[in-house]
Amino acid sequence: MRIIVIGAGAIGLLAAAKLSTIHDVQLLTRTNEQAKLISSRGICLNEETIHINAIPLDGLNTVQPADLYIICTKQYDIKSVWNKLVAHAAAPVLFLQNGMAHTDMLLSATFEYPIVVGSVEQGAVRVDQRRVLHTGKAVIRLANLAGTSAEKLVQHLHDSTFPFLFEKDWHRMLGRKLIANAVINPLTAIYRVKNGELLDCPAFCAIAQKLCEEAAEALDFDFAEQWEYVRHILMTTKANRSSMLKDIEAGRPTEVESISGYVQKHAKRAVPYTDFVYYSILGLTRQQERTSL
Amino acid sequence: MRIIVIGAGAIGLLAAAKLSTIHDVQLLTRTNEQAKLISSRGICLNEETIHINAIPLDGLNTVQPADLYIICTKQYDIKSVWNKLVAHAAAPVLFLQNGMAHTDMLLSATFEYPIVVGSVEQGAVRVDQRRVLHTGKAVIRLANLAGTSAEKLVQHLHDSTFPFLFEKDWHRMLGRKLIANAVINPLTAIYRVKNGELLDCPAFCAIAQKLCEEAAEALDFDFAEQWEYVRHILMTTKANRSSMLKDIEAGRPTEVESISGYVQKHAKRAVPYTDFVYYSILGLTRQQERTSL
Repeated sequence: MRIIVIGAGAIGLLAAAKLSTIHDVQLLTRTNEQAKLISSRGICLNEETIHINAIPLDGLNTVQPADLYIICTKQYDIKSVWNKLVAHAAAPVLFLQNGMAHTDMLLSATFEYPIVVGSVEQGAVRVDQRRVLHTGKAVIRLANLAGTSAEKLVQHLHDSTFPFLFEKDWHRMLGRKLIANAVINPLTAIYRVKNGELLDCPAFCAIAQKLCEEAAEALDFDFAEQWEYVRHILMTTKANRSSMLKDIEAGRPTEVESISGYVQKHAKRAVPYTDFVYYSILGLTRQQERTSL
Repeated sequence: MRIIVIGAGAIGLLAAAKLSTIHDVQLLTRTNEQAKLISSRGICLNEETIHINAIPLDGLNTVQPADLYIICTKQYDIKSVWNKLVAHAAAPVLFLQNGMAHTDMLLSATFEYPIVVGSVEQGAVRVDQRRVLHTGKAVIRLANLAGTSAEKLVQHLHDSTFPFLFEKDWHRMLGRKLIANAVINPLTAIYRVKNGELLDCPAFCAIAQKLCEEAAEALDFDFAEQWEYVRHILMTTKANRSSMLKDIEAGRPTEVESISGYVQKHAKRAVPYTDFVYYSILGLTRQQERTSL
């Protein structure tokens, strides 16, 4: 297949490098500088160098149509990418984001090609503009949001070294990950602690449980089942620092809008704990900007 | 008057030093070491040295009865002090604490001497075991909790260099300060920011307002009036780091139980924002202990 990967963060670099062993992959980056660097020196995945054609996203209208477009940008960059892609794409578009804000946007829009959403369980850390570490080997789950191409895509993309799985229900697939993110990400960022601390400290755990309750109810999930899932993730990632904690510490924007913001938007009644973490993260992001000036 | 001051933190040292210019003051400290240091070298208030007789609290039953007992310990130490004092005192007891947990305890107990509560607006910072800086010159307000001796006490204690004021309503006097503390203390400690940041950052301000609403309703205060008061304090103390922030950073216990805990205990309906900060402060205190091990 001819595949265009948009976004060269950790997941974009990983997907481009892995898929290019079988497919014809082109990578679209935000900056010209990164595109030049990757085109000339390749992606460095762990110790291996993979040669890849990369161009800046602004050159999208100059590229040949593809059989699949994979959007790997952060949630808050989707809109600008989508505005460029919407007129150009003529094949399935696969979204690989945390959070669910993009599903609201996509369900309210009209377009002629299938939309597939994915849930990435792979662990990847970007070292620099062309280097990525594959830190957790797992799967990418795909489900149909519009159209019916996800199952066929899984067949084309799946490889034992980079596995894909088909899921029937996109809302369940993305929802359970979103609920876990809505609990773990903001709390670890506010308290500046590793994931495991939320289980080890009874006071933090009490708040985590309240956040899980609010998010599960907003998304129509069973609370007890979700809390078990959150506990499981906290245990298996106890030494990890969450992406939101890293974002806050680095003074970068966070994905709180598409995580806690999604819970707020879909809540049927007051979600004060979610409101609390939502505003706290907004404030801490701004405060970081202020102190780093 | 013969006055016994119990507790040699910032307020205890300040009160003992100031009152000793007119009265016969004895200071009771927690440790033998501090009592010896103060008895031999005096209290150092700003640049001035004031000679004072100090003994450890354990020697309470050896001291001559006084005309007034002033309790200047932190809230969480009141119970142990009170258990020692209750059999010994035969004169008014004045409590100078933040928070209001002691009023619940005192209103449910029986004793034969008048109880006066005070609200300290003086700013004082303890430098070491015998040194204190008087950083904000203001008043100490006194009101009757049980008995009717507050007005007479104000007459005896008041001095133009260390003023006292009589207040008719102990609940209003302590309540408005508690509400301000319930907003400012936990939020600045959780976010690790100076007081002014709660006004400057709209997201933090939104949460501060919610906390103020919950505390005002729990204590039967008017929200709009209280919010104005909180804003006023935030503006006049914008460059300050709150006592709870300092406690959390130093790994000391905080006064959250007698501040947010009092709001929770007196709330007529759910106070989720107060619950959130209460558990957060408990967790951060514990976490600080863990990381400082």
